[in-house]
Amino acid sequence: MKATEWGIKIGRMPQGDQNQITDVPGVRVGHATLKAGGRQTGVTVVLPPENPFEVQYTAASEVFNGFGKSIGLMQIDTLGTLESPIALTNTLNVGRVADALIQIAIDQNGNEVSTYNPVVMECNDSYLNDIQTRSVDFQMVREAMDTASARFEEGAIGGGRGMTTFGLKGGIGSASRKIEVGEEAESQSYVLGVLVQTNFGKLQDLRIDGYPVGEKLENGGLKQSTEPDKGSIIVVMATDLPLSSRQIKRILKRSMIGIARTGGYMGNGSGEVAVGFTTASPGDRKNEHAVTERDVLNESLMDLAFRAMAECTEESILNAMFSAETVVGTEGHVRESLGERLGAVGSPWRWK
Amino acid sequence: MKATEWGIKIGRMPQGDQNQITDVPGVRVGHATLKAGGRQTGVTVVLPPENPFEVQYTAASEVFNGFGKSIGLMQIDTLGTLESPIALTNTLNVGRVADALIQIAIDQNGNEVSTYNPVVMECNDSYLNDIQTRSVDFQMVREAMDTASARFEEGAIGGGRGMTTFGLKGGIGSASRKIEVGEEAESQSYVLGVLVQTNFGKLQDLRIDGYPVGEKLENGGLKQSTEPDKGSIIVVMATDLPLSSRQIKRILKRSMIGIARTGGYMGNGSGEVAVGFTTASPGDRKNEHAVTERDVLNESLMDLAFRAMAECTEESILNAMFSAETVVGTEGHVRESLGERLGAVGSPWRWK
Amino acid sequence: MKATEWGIKIGRMPQGDQNQITDVPGVRVGHATLKAGGRQTGVTVVLPPENPFEVQYTAASEVFNGFGKSIGLMQIDTLGTLESPIALTNTLNVGRVADALIQIAIDQNGNEVSTYNPVVMECNDSYLNDIQTRSVDFQMVREAMDTASARFEEGAIGGGRGMTTFGLKGGIGSASRKIEVGEEAESQSYVLGVLVQTNFGKLQDLRIDGYPVGEKLENGGLKQSTEPDKGSIIVVMATDLPLSSRQIKRILKRSMIGIARTGGYMGNGSGEVAVGFTTASPGDRKNEHAVTERDVLNESLMDLAFRAMAECTEESILNAMFSAETVVGTEGHVRESLGERLGAVGSPWRWK
Amino acid sequence: MKATEWGIKIGRMPQGDQNQITDVPGVRVGHATLKAGGRQTGVTVVLPPENPFEVQYTAASEVFNGFGKSIGLMQIDTLGTLESPIALTNTLNVGRVADALIQIAIDQNGNEVSTYNPVVMECNDSYLNDIQTRSVDFQMVREAMDTASARFEEGAIGGGRGMTTFGLKGGIGSASRKIEVGEEAESQSYVLGVLVQTNFGKLQDLRIDGYPVGEKLENGGLKQSTEPDKGSIIVVMATDLPLSSRQIKRILKRSMIGIARTGGYMGNGSGEVAVGFTTASPGDRKNEHAVTERDVLNESLMDLAFRAMAECTEESILNAMFSAETVVGTEGHVRESLGERLGAVGSPWRWK
Repeated sequence: MKATEWGIKIGRMPQGDQNQITDVPGVRVGHATLKAGGRQTGVTVVLPPENPFEVQYTAASEVFNGFGKSIGLMQIDTLGTLESPIALTNTLNVGRVADALIQIAIDQNGNEVSTYNPVVMECNDSYLNDIQTRSVDFQMVREAMDTASARFEEGAIGGGRGMTTFGLKGGIGSASRKIEVGEEAESQSYVLGVLVQTNFGKLQDLRIDGYPVGEKLENGGLKQSTEPDKGSIIVVMATDLPLSSRQIKRILKRSMIGIARTGGYMGNGSGEVAVGFTTASPGDRKNEHAVTERDVLNESLMDLAFRAMAECTEESILNAMFSAETVVGTEGHVRESLGERLGAVGSPWRWK
Repeated sequence: MKATEWGIKIGRMPQGDQNQITDVPGVRVGHATLKAGGRQTGVTVVLPPENPFEVQYTAASEVFNGFGKSIGLMQIDTLGTLESPIALTNTLNVGRVADALIQIAIDQNGNEVSTYNPVVMECNDSYLNDIQTRSVDFQMVREAMDTASARFEEGAIGGGRGMTTFGLKGGIGSASRKIEVGEEAESQSYVLGVLVQTNFGKLQDLRIDGYPVGEKLENGGLKQSTEPDKGSIIVVMATDLPLSSRQIKRILKRSMIGIARTGGYMGNGSGEVAVGFTTASPGDRKNEHAVTERDVLNESLMDLAFRAMAECTEESILNAMFSAETVVGTEGHVRESLGERLGAVGSPWRWK
Repeated sequence: MKATEWGIKIGRMPQGDQNQITDVPGVRVGHATLKAGGRQTGVTVVLPPENPFEVQYTAASEVFNGFGKSIGLMQIDTLGTLESPIALTNTLNVGRVADALIQIAIDQNGNEVSTYNPVVMECNDSYLNDIQTRSVDFQMVREAMDTASARFEEGAIGGGRGMTTFGLKGGIGSASRKIEVGEEAESQSYVLGVLVQTNFGKLQDLRIDGYPVGEKLENGGLKQSTEPDKGSIIVVMATDLPLSSRQIKRILKRSMIGIARTGGYMGNGSGEVAVGFTTASPGDRKNEHAVTERDVLNESLMDLAFRAMAECTEESILNAMFSAETVVGTEGHVRESLGERLGAVGSPWRWK
Repeated sequence: MKATEWGIKIGRMPQGDQNQITDVPGVRVGHATLKAGGRQTGVTVVLPPENPFEVQYTAASEVFNGFGKSIGLMQIDTLGTLESPIALTNTLNVGRVADALIQIAIDQNGNEVSTYNPVVMECNDSYLNDIQTRSVDFQMVREAMDTASARFEEGAIGGGRGMTTFGLKGGIGSASRKIEVGEEAESQSYVLGVLVQTNFGKLQDLRIDGYPVGEKLENGGLKQSTEPDKGSIIVVMATDLPLSSRQIKRILKRSMIGIARTGGYMGNGSGEVAVGFTTASPGDRKNEHAVTERDVLNESLMDLAFRAMAECTEESILNAMFSAETVVGTEGHVRESLGERLGAVGSPWRWK
């Protein structure tokens, strides 16, 4: 069950058909999940429609708080292009997953791969997961890519398996918004989708559509961790809006609005990082034309994308929480499910 | 009346004694306001304790959305120091106010001023103010500086005279938080304060401590503008926490959290810009020692400052709105006061 | 006489027809110069082909060392567009010149100007100029714009009147390079031009095409200032290459290469700042189409633009120096002309 | 033989005792090198004096052209600290080397390592090295760290084994400068050192202390590659100057000056990235004091560090080239040694 099914409506824009990042045509998501005693972790991949090494999708990134170990953002900033899948995993697994993406790119593209920019982002799941084992290996990355599809599960799965959010169980969440631009005859419909790997916050700060649910739950005695916040949230955005990398970066900045509205403070030890790409005006690594035509959105219409980004991010975080089951991990650590908990006490935020 | 007096409590940290930026010892704020028919504008200055040209306060800036015409931030980014007062005014007056600050610096410091970095930030008050007159002149800047004090008015005053917020009257608002660091005997109390010049948002989006007041008011028929959003909010932070410029920049980033929680989306045509300084470890332009000792806050304590920054920004925006009176400006344009309006209908946000 | 006429050839790319920034079709440059005893200063404006307020040229900026007081770069960074002329003047005149540009924009565009982003950049001419007088007024800015043309003088003129370079006379310099892209039938010729206002460096560091001319001249007893370096160089780039703002920013970064090769070290008190725009794919402020087609250069061809930028910047600095006459300014201060000096001793750098 | 032994003197500042980055007390450098037919690659590590995970050295990074796959810079930018060794290797090996650094940190620091920020930087050695094998494994990283010492070899060794510079053999190079600050009694001596992994440029552009050696050699028929430039140079800086991370970032920017003076253009496909740290005012991960005193260099003395950085970078590149032997690699590819070549033809740059 996602937030919508609990009667929660974030913002005013219409949801995409599935309310997932994969509403952007061609985008696929895959998971590989490890649930083995103290090893509760995994990897999630977001795949653009075509082989990104060939297409070089227009992309950007934005770092709000760089307490994080992502790889791949520097080149995106300079070239404005994405040439690999985007993988989300745990903090100490970034090296292995990056190496797996490189191997997969070689397997797929052969001798042409003498340089390759894998994108791997992470949150710290060490409360539930025995993180030092760095258990996400080549086979898991391979599995996540092979099983990627337009429909995917959310919650305590893939890279989100061991994640904690507002002291409760976090994980992978997603949402999307439809964007109509242009007048009547020229009208065109686009979609913007977000996927988050969410792992931040204290229970007392949790807000659902503004309502201070965390405070209520805490006063109600809900068990939560007293561990210091090691935080982090990774935000992945995909859209088919025709955008330049500068415009994508502007949109990514608005993910912070969604994070803030759920109660996040971007703590010192937290890594808030966003990356995004558009499937419009796909590139071509072998393009030899000196000049290429590209479609670019009218800047005055960016407000629609900004609002969609904020709404999607806020809702994706809630969707991760509502979708996640309770998980018991390393050393008997437990993160309780918000959805399971609220199933018992009812929905305290219907205050409108 | 500020938000507190309406029973609104933003966050959990204790307010400073006056709940203004001037709770930071030595910081002063001054206004000069023009209320003359179609000319509804002004200037507000934030002054550090000592002559900033001599002291070179540690400072930083942060640009969220740079649809704005501020002057002075580039040098702050490179040198990490502030050497002028911070002036807030209207968009087309930046040049004149910068020139006035230069003249005042020459008057004050004499021949030593061959280079000087005035800091002037702006929002667009052209709905209420006949902005093309650029009415804020040297005398007004001089007046704002001469009358600056540790107690100052908020609302439709100074640079905030002509500003609009969430379709209602905006202006100048302020708030502060106390920050206790260290254990017992070593315990030390600091204060972090914020002043905003606020001029953004649509009524439908306004939230007060999470509650969708804007939606309620709109449904209740409150008159608001249908003008396109020309937006902007300027955030000024002062503190006596011992901080490096890198740390100040990190704190400034959290002002976005406060903006987001009031309902802001950082629209395309909006300028969200923050600048801040610390009064701790003051510098000395004439310092000839090769190496100087500086106090720096333990990075793990930054969370306190982050939270204070988010709370202060959110509350400052509300304080600007609650303090502002209804203003009639150029071409008969009107911006209604939230405080006046709610005085009639009561406080719909007391839902906790 | 420019560097070429001294037998100096910087790099390998062909010069534009005039070897000036105005080789970019439609670009014009104008000066207003004050030569009045201790007041030796002025303003130089670079104008794009059409009214920039209407066209919104694609643009970017780059700050190497932000000890400077420029206004207008923040908005260019966010929106990627230029809507005003680019004015170069002295440090303490930025406010007045910005105000003049605003007034001129109002005069030209009328009521539509409720927001406007003037771009004014500066160097510190206080050694030769009585800078506290802030002598560049509205009339001078007006004059510079009115007299702007496709042919313009270089040297101790306009904003460069009071500037110092490598302890000798600096000022305004310019250069351009032709760029051929595409194969044969599809081949297309573009031009990239640079204009600098140059005011940095110590004589001992001056290199001309690698040759240590400064060291030679210093040993030869050439009189130079022992003043501390207050530095700065402003680099303006124009081109008709079809570029995104991201690409322009990449090109601007290569101006540093040219600065370094003349002997610059980007000193602490120096402001090295670049701004650039393309005349290709002009925008339209009133464009209401949701999506617009734009031409964009193949990223793999950027090397040509990078090399052109480095060559143009290096040569522009030399052109400023070779073109500048000796100037006597405030308090009898003198900056000797490199050209005049070398006219006597001959050209010591012809070592190839 | 390094550049000095060829009679080349870069700049005016005095070299450190060994003219290596390890002149900074406590800094060590280690290599592991693979010379096995088509596999010509390796890894080089720069180690700060103490366990960086515990000390958290003040650090910064600077990206000139981000066509590169470095990991670890994002966190350095946010926190201003370095907590791992700095490893240099080939492009497709970044994942494996990062994973090795994580394992070594776990081995060394035990259970406390639930988050760790490995710093791995790379250049593309695919012309000489069969890069798809990703041959640098855990054992090699371990070996590089175990053998790190205050004296180390330069040239075609470690991470530099397969690198190409100006069409000739590149690799690892280093240089250092002494910096005296303060007057007489208070005078204090510091050192700033640089290590580069250099892999960029075309022969025709090579300059040695300004002299166009590349052009001469090319005209003399020296064999060079016609491969497209896949470029890159990594610059590592260490110093014992007391600096903030903001100041280190300013210093790193001046490495570009050294690169430019050797003839580099920062090509599109090149990654120019710098990282640096100071051993002064070491931190302490377990520090629980709310406020710590730090020494900070007077900003007006930064010019000395800027000049040292530019000189060290320029000289380090030359040292890499002069120290490197000719290497035959994959598919029989050859990169000729500049030193060997010039040993035959003599030193054409002694033109002063």
